[in-house]
Amino acid sequence: MNRYPLQKHVLVAVDCIIFGFDGYHIKLLLIQRGFKPEKNKWSLMGGFVQEGESPQDAANRVLKQLTGLEGVYMEQLHTFGHPQRDPVERTITVAYSALIDIHKYEKQISDEYHAEWFLLTEKPRLIFDHDEMTELAKKQLRYKAAFHPVLFELLPAKFTIPLLQSLYEGVYDTVFDNRNFSRKILSTGLLIKQKQKDKLNSKKGAFYYKLDKKKYKADFKSFLNFVPNPDKFII
Amino acid sequence: MNRYPLQKHVLVAVDCIIFGFDGYHIKLLLIQRGFKPEKNKWSLMGGFVQEGESPQDAANRVLKQLTGLEGVYMEQLHTFGHPQRDPVERTITVAYSALIDIHKYEKQISDEYHAEWFLLTEKPRLIFDHDEMTELAKKQLRYKAAFHPVLFELLPAKFTIPLLQSLYEGVYDTVFDNRNFSRKILSTGLLIKQKQKDKLNSKKGAFYYKLDKKKYKADFKSFLNFVPNPDKFII
Repeated sequence: MNRYPLQKHVLVAVDCIIFGFDGYHIKLLLIQRGFKPEKNKWSLMGGFVQEGESPQDAANRVLKQLTGLEGVYMEQLHTFGHPQRDPVERTITVAYSALIDIHKYEKQISDEYHAEWFLLTEKPRLIFDHDEMTELAKKQLRYKAAFHPVLFELLPAKFTIPLLQSLYEGVYDTVFDNRNFSRKILSTGLLIKQKQKDKLNSKKGAFYYKLDKKKYKADFKSFLNFVPNPDKFII
Repeated sequence: MNRYPLQKHVLVAVDCIIFGFDGYHIKLLLIQRGFKPEKNKWSLMGGFVQEGESPQDAANRVLKQLTGLEGVYMEQLHTFGHPQRDPVERTITVAYSALIDIHKYEKQISDEYHAEWFLLTEKPRLIFDHDEMTELAKKQLRYKAAFHPVLFELLPAKFTIPLLQSLYEGVYDTVFDNRNFSRKILSTGLLIKQKQKDKLNSKKGAFYYKLDKKKYKADFKSFLNFVPNPDKFII
């Protein structure tokens, strides 16, 4: 029931920005819009918030309906509310984002759905303000990845420097000189060299490493030492 | 015009969480609600998003209408959309927050308005989910203050250790041992001692300090060195 009938009631939607890592590249999940306007154009996964549903519930439902993906932890990114952002009718949208391991979820994204992974460098132009949303999500991911070991969560427990490099290159959209990257990353002292080598991806082979999680956390805390009691803020 | 008449249209509101520092304490700006339900209860500054207005515009307008405050840079914090969060009618609200220097804005908040500053420790219980919003804003402020010199922006260019301590105590809601705080903060090497003393606030007087902004930035970057090109992420 509308208890404030004089107030303007608007549509509220959600949009889901799903980044994935396939072991080589960072990709973005998109769907082809099935209705007008902008029919057949590429789009983030979006839909309206229904009665009795929170925006977070709506994001989970919409993602599942459009891609098959389930159990993905999405974080609220930002709410986009420019009055003209949707040409059909004013719609305020709450954007959610996540970064997932593509292989872990590949069975869920079946052919039943028309969702496709795009390389970030080959992403088509998206409808409405979806490019702006994607840019903000990328920026937030880069910021988070600079402070927290979120990227390591996408890697197997043992990984090679080339694998780590391709992940960083994807997130920060740069190409690093191999030798410099390796030197810089090893100089942090955060990686523990393993005895085994990966011999599948190169002739010479590449040693496996593990992240020293304790040390990573300690370094983070020693930076935060400027703040008297940093434990409260490690999110 | 409602082009999607079958879709549920809802109210969208904004709520403003304004923290202030008066040189001694961190405070929260509140208003007394003038209408039912919850009449006379304390509340954040809130109102509905109007036609042709973005949520950010609405937040600026609502803050000015209810408190007189103008030109305050508010950041979008989070959107709260639990279906039952407003007992009158479903309302999805976009929360905005800011931290300001109370003295700088005291002329704007005149007696014309019924806005009041509350010590965080003496804050009354707020209506709806406003306590939850305030908690999240506090958490975000603490997180930001751990990484960026946002708190120093509230201090005069020259400040004493006791002033800095009271600011940190306010934000992190703790009492620090004076000697320990002083030792810890000076050991960061980020403060430059001045020749003059503040003699107004104690018999012995307290030396003034300045923040070494270059060094602060460099330390931050050296932590970020784990990330190959950190410049992009210093927000």
